[in-house]
Amino acid sequence: MPELRQNRVTKEWVIIATERAKRPEQLSVKRDIKPLPEYSENCPFCAGNEAQAPPEIMHIDHDGRWQIRVVPNKFSALAREGEPTRKIERSRRTMNGVGIHDVIVEGRQHNLTTALLPEAHVANILRAYKMRYNEISQDPRIQQVIIFKNHGGTAGASLEHPHSQLIAIPVISHQVRERFHEALRHYDEYGECVFCELNAEELSEGSRIVISSPHFLAMEQFASPTPFVTHIYPKRHMASFGDIREEEVVDLAGVMKSLLAKLYHGLENPDFNYAIRTAPAENAGVKYYHWYISVIPRLTKVAGFELGSGMFINVVLPEAAAEFLRNVKVPESQPAAAGK
Amino acid sequence: MPELRQNRVTKEWVIIATERAKRPEQLSVKRDIKPLPEYSENCPFCAGNEAQAPPEIMHIDHDGRWQIRVVPNKFSALAREGEPTRKIERSRRTMNGVGIHDVIVEGRQHNLTTALLPEAHVANILRAYKMRYNEISQDPRIQQVIIFKNHGGTAGASLEHPHSQLIAIPVISHQVRERFHEALRHYDEYGECVFCELNAEELSEGSRIVISSPHFLAMEQFASPTPFVTHIYPKRHMASFGDIREEEVVDLAGVMKSLLAKLYHGLENPDFNYAIRTAPAENAGVKYYHWYISVIPRLTKVAGFELGSGMFINVVLPEAAAEFLRNVKVPESQPAAAGK
Repeated sequence: MPELRQNRVTKEWVIIATERAKRPEQLSVKRDIKPLPEYSENCPFCAGNEAQAPPEIMHIDHDGRWQIRVVPNKFSALAREGEPTRKIERSRRTMNGVGIHDVIVEGRQHNLTTALLPEAHVANILRAYKMRYNEISQDPRIQQVIIFKNHGGTAGASLEHPHSQLIAIPVISHQVRERFHEALRHYDEYGECVFCELNAEELSEGSRIVISSPHFLAMEQFASPTPFVTHIYPKRHMASFGDIREEEVVDLAGVMKSLLAKLYHGLENPDFNYAIRTAPAENAGVKYYHWYISVIPRLTKVAGFELGSGMFINVVLPEAAAEFLRNVKVPESQPAAAGK
Repeated sequence: MPELRQNRVTKEWVIIATERAKRPEQLSVKRDIKPLPEYSENCPFCAGNEAQAPPEIMHIDHDGRWQIRVVPNKFSALAREGEPTRKIERSRRTMNGVGIHDVIVEGRQHNLTTALLPEAHVANILRAYKMRYNEISQDPRIQQVIIFKNHGGTAGASLEHPHSQLIAIPVISHQVRERFHEALRHYDEYGECVFCELNAEELSEGSRIVISSPHFLAMEQFASPTPFVTHIYPKRHMASFGDIREEEVVDLAGVMKSLLAKLYHGLENPDFNYAIRTAPAENAGVKYYHWYISVIPRLTKVAGFELGSGMFINVVLPEAAAEFLRNVKVPESQPAAAGK
């Protein structure tokens, strides 16, 4: 018998379709993965091709040369200059598209994705996120900052070179508003952050936990909309990503690397997205919201039912996905990382 | 300068990214479309292969043989028998997955999609929708009925033979609840159905209208999340699809056929979904909600920004999409339809 499960925070229902159930490993797409070169002549993000990208905003050095670089997106979705002004015309609400659209180049080499990087390198990617996040949050025009990664064509990546993006917008998105409302409602009723409560409960039960580190918890979602959606929550209550501490950055780098390596080795380098879902800067101190990273492998297709109802049909039991990921062994020494 | 636009009903913002703008025709995917055969031996939906599908629920005849057939989905997402019981365990909400999952086989031939069918045939597809919708709405276990179509692999179709699906669920999805709330809020403030108001305004302005028939309006969305999302609204206020009248069915068949033929010929048979968004049966008579069909071509990819924020970046101006579709000429006599 299939089961309907409700997401505790968003109140969204999903159908866990056991009649259509697949074993987790059945979802890995056997592909001819052609190995990427270390360097690609026309790649604007490869070391040596810096002039092909727009002028750098910042970088983090390692061994006397840049390891992480932040540049403006050449095909920006928003205009960096100008004032956001809301226009109300009859029933219509518009605003000029002012905002910030950065690219975070995650390394010098064309072929080293997070799963293959040393933890210390991943920590620098996270430090770049934090620096840009906190800098941009000071901009009075900006209401929300979204940091995300597209890995692979299905996930919307148009360039192969490992990179992530940051888009800062002059409005609060409806989705964030909604989650805020629901979390606030929970706090008003129970006097506790719904995410803190959830984390404690999940940790004591254990069946959906993938990784538990000193500061973070990576786990499958009880009401996961699609297979292998994994959230990484800080164990300490913290509404805003911008408040992450240095020891937490170091710990998170290990968790991110380990989780993405488990996906890489267990599901044959699947396309995926991740996004940091955080409170808007103006709400950094609230007791009822909790930032987290949502890692979303793109293993199945969104179809008419999902678009028509907003509900999802998930063909993998979240508990089976967690068990599968816990059991994936990541090779100790990785040639790519070693060869760096 | 890009523009942010707010969806009047859902309050969701989208970025219309003019800096990345594409002409509508640039989105058509040039593919080697191998023509489908009229009949496929292993297709459970082809005439002659009826025994390969589960036993029929209903059919509509034409010329003394079935033209439309409704069968249970062999890989049902929900169990047809049983009572939905809500289980509340600590913080968790679950329900056994009881519901109905039908397939509407849209014709006898393997290769005739809606864009190529005579209007009278399309009307029979809509009649099958209506009959099943009203029948299932009587089931006290069911709270919401979603009728949808997946056309092409990107849109989630796993079988080529033209078909649509119906999933009836024992809950109201969060998305529908949200839209209901917003529409009710609008009604409380303005004393008018937000969709009726929108339709009158769009009709008087005209720039986003694709087709205006006696009873329906097909138009691009002012704050369209992705390119070419087209909504078809009944001009008469009507909250539930189940209340559509016979003369409206006939008219809607013409609009559906014409719109899908414009997509087929203008954008080279793109993958698409459509879904009927309707009030739940128990709210059939409300003054503040309005059913419609959302047609969603799958021309671009959903990436990390969209998943992380719930906001979309649209690279085609909705007004340009409307103009493009208005100008697509659909060949008068279609060989496939003629050869039937």
